Amino acid sequence: MSEVRRDPIIGRWVIVYKPENSLGPADYEKSVHTLKQGAVCQFCNGREAQTPPEVDAIRAGYAPNTPGWLARVVPNKFPALRIEGELNRRGNGVYDMSNGVGAHEVLVETPDHAKNFADYSLDEAVNVIKMYQSRSASLGRDKRFKYIMIFKNFGQSAGASVEHAHSQIIALPLVPKYVAEELEGAEKYYGFRGRCVFCDMIQQEYQDQRRIITSNDGFLSFCPFVPRYPFESWIFPKDHNSDFVSMQDLEREQLAGILKDVLLRMKICLSNPSYNFYLHVKPVDDDNKSYHWHIEIVPQLTRVAGFEWGTGFYVVRTAPSVAAEYLRGAIK
Amino acid sequence: MSEVRRDPIIGRWVIVYKPENSLGPADYEKSVHTLKQGAVCQFCNGREAQTPPEVDAIRAGYAPNTPGWLARVVPNKFPALRIEGELNRRGNGVYDMSNGVGAHEVLVETPDHAKNFADYSLDEAVNVIKMYQSRSASLGRDKRFKYIMIFKNFGQSAGASVEHAHSQIIALPLVPKYVAEELEGAEKYYGFRGRCVFCDMIQQEYQDQRRIITSNDGFLSFCPFVPRYPFESWIFPKDHNSDFVSMQDLEREQLAGILKDVLLRMKICLSNPSYNFYLHVKPVDDDNKSYHWHIEIVPQLTRVAGFEWGTGFYVVRTAPSVAAEYLRGAIK
Repeated sequence: MSEVRRDPIIGRWVIVYKPENSLGPADYEKSVHTLKQGAVCQFCNGREAQTPPEVDAIRAGYAPNTPGWLARVVPNKFPALRIEGELNRRGNGVYDMSNGVGAHEVLVETPDHAKNFADYSLDEAVNVIKMYQSRSASLGRDKRFKYIMIFKNFGQSAGASVEHAHSQIIALPLVPKYVAEELEGAEKYYGFRGRCVFCDMIQQEYQDQRRIITSNDGFLSFCPFVPRYPFESWIFPKDHNSDFVSMQDLEREQLAGILKDVLLRMKICLSNPSYNFYLHVKPVDDDNKSYHWHIEIVPQLTRVAGFEWGTGFYVVRTAPSVAAEYLRGAIK
Repeated sequence: MSEVRRDPIIGRWVIVYKPENSLGPADYEKSVHTLKQGAVCQFCNGREAQTPPEVDAIRAGYAPNTPGWLARVVPNKFPALRIEGELNRRGNGVYDMSNGVGAHEVLVETPDHAKNFADYSLDEAVNVIKMYQSRSASLGRDKRFKYIMIFKNFGQSAGASVEHAHSQIIALPLVPKYVAEELEGAEKYYGFRGRCVFCDMIQQEYQDQRRIITSNDGFLSFCPFVPRYPFESWIFPKDHNSDFVSMQDLEREQLAGILKDVLLRMKICLSNPSYNFYLHVKPVDDDNKSYHWHIEIVPQLTRVAGFEWGTGFYVVRTAPSVAAEYLRGAIK
């Protein structure tokens, strides 16, 4: 159904659908652009039979695939990568490629159809984090997978194609480029200075104060000094922490709280924007101690255009100190 | 007005506006999203006084900044980088930064207000290429600039904020990340195999045939084997060529012809899509012979979402061989 291909110049990996599964021009005109709204949502309570059987859930004593769940993970009906089969890595002239093997799951975060994460109860938010951890641990045991990527698209401008509150979990047969670059950069910095570059960054944010949005006992959120997008916001564990999966109850509540908090500030301050967030964690089976996991949140306020596509150089028209001031001011 | 900042982890450079020039939330809600259409266009013939004085033009014997031009280059009224001043590179804790010094120009491609490049006469298209070359040469003489980036945003989904047919030219104080990675990759391949990686890629496309869109005596266009976007299309000089600026009349006509041709195929096949294209050329003052300049064209059919933002790993739901088949079939 799909292949994983690597360009021979800069080492970018791409998942490409096979010809027989490819979308034609007409498919893009309507379906891809439009957020499906509607009375009949396959992710709502009572419609469990419309999804593939669940692979994980938080529910109070009912049978799997029946109503009454609080959060529910199901395989994506239209997965970018398929769970079956071997990778079969091979060359094709100047290119490298493999079969599109991986996992692509949907976490239905709450039965409440179109609820914004910003408006979740603390329990609802904690359930989401729990499922992130549980799927990461479970998929990480499959030896074919090198990286578990967790992300959320909220709203049409953020690329969401389904309205019901959900996240996606993709298990990849290799470590994606941006994460690999971060790991390499962090390792180099650690080798050179003996310190975690993210910890140094956090300390610099505390000293400067201007870009801090909010914090609690365990976590800090700030607008990064070198953002790619206006109002981009990051959340870090305050203390050095390279292991997302082993986080316990207290930290989980703290993380759920600050994530809700930052998203609510964005909702207030930016008029309920579309947004993406994603986790950057270390690869499966990597006990690299120099990495510091975190969440990056990107409200979708602008269109990335030719300059950014061509250069990887971003133009950000709101200084992060200004963005942080707005976000701080959104909730007093 | 702006600063250039570098993140200490993966080396990404970003242009960040200063607090006093920053956009607030309300600015994004309306202005940034919306393509300005309207009867009063500052780029139309007869409104030369509404732009800053032109820095270059193709005109048939009239005085600068008067009507009668065929193509016209003016400084951007709201530049991302300013032409005045020194870079003043400096550190700031873990970050590197410099002043936002550079050039940001607009090429008004034709007096014909909203004309699509796909519908240009050959002369109009040649004028655009001529201006690209002339501005590259001229800005390249300024010793502060390391790279001249040329790109076009057409249509609202491609991030265009002005309707009148135009391209943008940005002179940068450093080589942007994607280009630097391509240069490095090409150099490594050359060092290892003694051949240009792009030439090898072109040869592989000729052998395979399935991804070729069209060609003429000087240029080849194909859908790359490892695309980032559906219907992404590249244009390469057929023979190894590392110097865009020195191209002469015949090649210029060939390039103008194939660029028009590919854009017309996209217009027909994808229902007049928004698109971006940009040139990838070698840096100023670099006589690296292993690079092979080219144009990358990206029709905007989907929204990049959390997975791509977080990983740099793209999911492309149309196989390039299928895209090429549609584009070949658009004009028989």
